[in-house]
Amino acid sequence: MPDIFIKNKSKRIQCKPDRNLLQLLLENGIFVDNPCNGKGSCGKCKIRLLQGKLPAVSETEKRLLKKEEIAAGVRLACLVVPEENIEIETLQKERTHEILTAGYMPDFRMNPGISKKKFQIEKPTLENQSAYEDSLGNALGREDLDWRLLQHLAMGDGEVTGVFSGEDLIGVETGDTTALTYGVAVDIGTTTVVTALIDLKTGDELASASMLNPQKKFGLDVLTRITYSIENPADGQKELQNAIVEGLNSLIEDMCSKSAVSMQNIYEISIAANCTMMHFLLGIDTAPIGRSPYAPVFVKSKNIMAKDIGLKGAPGARVYCLPSVSSYIGADIVAGAYVCQLEKSRGNLLFIDIGTNGEIVLAKNGRLMSCSCAAGPALEGMNISCGMRAAVGAIEDVAITAEGIKLKVIGDEAPIGLCGSGILAAVKELIRIGLVRKNGSFIKKEEMEETDYRYPMLRVDGKKREFVLRNGQEPLGITQGDIRQVQLAKGAILSGFHALLRQAELHMNQLDKVMIAGQFGAHLPVNSLVGTEILPEEVKDKIHYVGNSSKTGAYMALMSVEVKKEIEALAKQMDYIELGASEGYEKLFAKCLQFEKAQ
Amino acid sequence: MPDIFIKNKSKRIQCKPDRNLLQLLLENGIFVDNPCNGKGSCGKCKIRLLQGKLPAVSETEKRLLKKEEIAAGVRLACLVVPEENIEIETLQKERTHEILTAGYMPDFRMNPGISKKKFQIEKPTLENQSAYEDSLGNALGREDLDWRLLQHLAMGDGEVTGVFSGEDLIGVETGDTTALTYGVAVDIGTTTVVTALIDLKTGDELASASMLNPQKKFGLDVLTRITYSIENPADGQKELQNAIVEGLNSLIEDMCSKSAVSMQNIYEISIAANCTMMHFLLGIDTAPIGRSPYAPVFVKSKNIMAKDIGLKGAPGARVYCLPSVSSYIGADIVAGAYVCQLEKSRGNLLFIDIGTNGEIVLAKNGRLMSCSCAAGPALEGMNISCGMRAAVGAIEDVAITAEGIKLKVIGDEAPIGLCGSGILAAVKELIRIGLVRKNGSFIKKEEMEETDYRYPMLRVDGKKREFVLRNGQEPLGITQGDIRQVQLAKGAILSGFHALLRQAELHMNQLDKVMIAGQFGAHLPVNSLVGTEILPEEVKDKIHYVGNSSKTGAYMALMSVEVKKEIEALAKQMDYIELGASEGYEKLFAKCLQFEKAQ
Repeated sequence: MPDIFIKNKSKRIQCKPDRNLLQLLLENGIFVDNPCNGKGSCGKCKIRLLQGKLPAVSETEKRLLKKEEIAAGVRLACLVVPEENIEIETLQKERTHEILTAGYMPDFRMNPGISKKKFQIEKPTLENQSAYEDSLGNALGREDLDWRLLQHLAMGDGEVTGVFSGEDLIGVETGDTTALTYGVAVDIGTTTVVTALIDLKTGDELASASMLNPQKKFGLDVLTRITYSIENPADGQKELQNAIVEGLNSLIEDMCSKSAVSMQNIYEISIAANCTMMHFLLGIDTAPIGRSPYAPVFVKSKNIMAKDIGLKGAPGARVYCLPSVSSYIGADIVAGAYVCQLEKSRGNLLFIDIGTNGEIVLAKNGRLMSCSCAAGPALEGMNISCGMRAAVGAIEDVAITAEGIKLKVIGDEAPIGLCGSGILAAVKELIRIGLVRKNGSFIKKEEMEETDYRYPMLRVDGKKREFVLRNGQEPLGITQGDIRQVQLAKGAILSGFHALLRQAELHMNQLDKVMIAGQFGAHLPVNSLVGTEILPEEVKDKIHYVGNSSKTGAYMALMSVEVKKEIEALAKQMDYIELGASEGYEKLFAKCLQFEKAQ
Repeated sequence: MPDIFIKNKSKRIQCKPDRNLLQLLLENGIFVDNPCNGKGSCGKCKIRLLQGKLPAVSETEKRLLKKEEIAAGVRLACLVVPEENIEIETLQKERTHEILTAGYMPDFRMNPGISKKKFQIEKPTLENQSAYEDSLGNALGREDLDWRLLQHLAMGDGEVTGVFSGEDLIGVETGDTTALTYGVAVDIGTTTVVTALIDLKTGDELASASMLNPQKKFGLDVLTRITYSIENPADGQKELQNAIVEGLNSLIEDMCSKSAVSMQNIYEISIAANCTMMHFLLGIDTAPIGRSPYAPVFVKSKNIMAKDIGLKGAPGARVYCLPSVSSYIGADIVAGAYVCQLEKSRGNLLFIDIGTNGEIVLAKNGRLMSCSCAAGPALEGMNISCGMRAAVGAIEDVAITAEGIKLKVIGDEAPIGLCGSGILAAVKELIRIGLVRKNGSFIKKEEMEETDYRYPMLRVDGKKREFVLRNGQEPLGITQGDIRQVQLAKGAILSGFHALLRQAELHMNQLDKVMIAGQFGAHLPVNSLVGTEILPEEVKDKIHYVGNSSKTGAYMALMSVEVKKEIEALAKQMDYIELGASEGYEKLFAKCLQFEKAQ
């Protein structure tokens, strides 16, 4: 079988039968963006051929790649099967870790579910051969202990330390170990995973660690991953579960070694995640989430044994999964709504987590309504002709003036594409300078004077119009299609926003606060959000960024049994509105597609 | 590495570094008796060299093997490391299955813990996206379901069948499956494992299967196995657990295929076993059982998920473990006492399970006392110079008259050794014909006339006396040491018997019934038991054989929740007397060593 040398990774891999280049690269741990999961439709898994030959460029590649790219040897990895030794380079750079781990947190009384207590175990004698289980039960004054506890007992007599999760005994340790009591707070996002190691006695964060969600190789969004698990009925679901469990275990190990904490003293892992991630984590079928009527298998909180899903920690360690509301309002949003105290506040508050799915929660004097809008991946830089994830080389801000186009690029390198905030900034600018109309289409070039500074920025190729961000050998532009993608995202989110307001019988100007949560939202400046009309002008001064409120919620649940109870109550009382099924939604959506500020 | 060809198995195996011949054979699935677990002390792992060379015969082999054996090429597998290609044969024959599976059973009302119920699940809609967990809970009218159930839901709507263990929902199946409800009753003995597949609706036994306990390769008795697990702290315990779990799984598979029952419809496995076997099964430390003060980790009954210990069945199948009383009065004895209705009967009943450990339960008008006596392995044919397990070629009965010695051999083949019932019969005869004195020693040859028919039967070699069972090239005999072993067993059991009577303030003749239980006891005839004074003459006509009452108890528990409760109550109210710690026991034991009937 032929060899492939990946020059920029200095790595040589071997071909295998029935594998395309993308599969070979992924199997060998070389990450290549593949939002469509190797289906040959997204055009993102670009590599460049440096040496050797590949089969002829396919029609699909001709459609998805630019002529210049094809000329430069760029190919789509999922569409080629190497037949001889080749040398290639991958074209994507991973952003160095810049994952949002902190955020706003309200005051609360610490009262963690995990506690420790010293007690004495009587030594058995020939005359009194009490079983250890019974001695333990007597010392604790209780009859029924979880039998699995017996598999890992220190079995000492004299002074021992019992570990409790609420009323349940979950561990017995020799001697006095009350000083060593740790937990982990976790936010599992579709894209990123964030963990923090917490001292349960003080609430201090001893270490934190984060990574891209290792499930990304099964698809970048939840639906692609669900599809993968459906198309691989034998072990697809298990593969996705293993990926996240192994990822979490490596983060936990990492934090333990950084802070010299023994994994054996971690007793609870508190997890916030969207509903799909939670299902995968517990090894529960995700298929129902992916098909109408989108009823998940479970939404309630779970308190389970870590070892039942393979997570590391003390032998009896627990995992607390925060509750969800529905398939598309997950525990991450419940956590965020709780952290922002939506149910406790007077007034009208709006909470929004912007991503591939935009989740919105509206609180009207403590009554909560929520909806989820399929914004699509445009705001994360996907499905955009020059889109890319927020990695080095991505344009993250754009300013267009008569003096020209100013680009802000991550890592201050030469731009190679646009990430979500970049495309949003660009569209905002195009609206502002009048190149894009209300209905989202470019103005006609003939409507402009040739002396207009904007005139050279618009390139016309037959009927196709494109805004030129950069000319030259590796041109970058924004197509009409790109604007449509942003428009769809804007329409989805804004219509959700309005639908909730309508449901609550509120006017926009009655809102007291708009809270933006999440990894992605934190990178979208108010100007872009309002400039593209994802959020209406009226709320401009009411916007607050609350950071990773999902992780904060997991932390608070870890540190307080009352918080757990309140979060569970909150999830139960939060109404969910399925936009697709709500009256007059299509009309509202059509209206929200308009760029009202455009000339 | 050299090869070994095992001629009688027609199998060739490869040597490996640091492995003696016994290890190589066991690792390749070729069973060789090794009661001492390869420590070079029991002298049982005999093989015969047919071709090639082995290292010189060691001093230990010279001590443990007869000259004739050494001359014939017999070696001890645990003491030789092959250095070149050899051809050998193994010398033990496994008895074709003759494992006791049936026995006495009292009447009882069938009311199994497992039940099924049909119900309707509402189909979710876009307007009502209820999580499946909640729809299920609503249909059942309950809030809390075991989350692990969600991992294996059929997730159908419309008619489904719920499977319940008591009040707990343990499974949900699509459609009406109420007709398919099965369970398994299990008796795990140290030597044998017996299982039966039961139709829970009718109580019918659909199939049965049994095997030698696969843990035998780690030692024949519980202490050797406990020692193995202590000496292999990394995974010894896991190895022993895996051995029994895999064994049980193969029996369950076997029964399912014999009776065309789907493993997916097995919902409960009810298990009786001695306390050590139960600890190994659950993966719980057995070390405390093996050392003073012999306090086990647990004795209480357990109702656990089969998958937690790797047992097959429906995804939510349960395992019910019957309760023990102490380390040496296990669930097998509790089951037996229950089956024999000791606690429900008026009068004075004695229950005895004879084996390496003899367990005795005395019931005085429903008050139960128990003790365990270390009979040693003599009664199972071990630690006897010509001893062997009850396999083809084993002498199982002996009659000595003036006409000569009559031997009854299993399989009617040429005798190759004595099994437990054989050694017992022989000793009984030696007492009867006056060759053995009260104190257990042979009479002196000079005390007999040379014309006495017994005269040639006693061989004297210096100070050593031996009874000759068979002369010739492969002689068989009973040594003074063999008689001592039987004497120790008799002393242990009889003294336990008396100790319990003393505790209950009863006289021998006040006993109404003596019940003999278990695999081994069933092969010991009244004549041998009374003739060797293991049991006193007074109870001769009161002896009943109750068969495999351990399995019967497991079956009854499977078929009735009331039986479970009564068995649990019985275990709690059964007193246990540690003979070693009871007053005057040593004196009693010394007295019980005497053969009172001897001349």
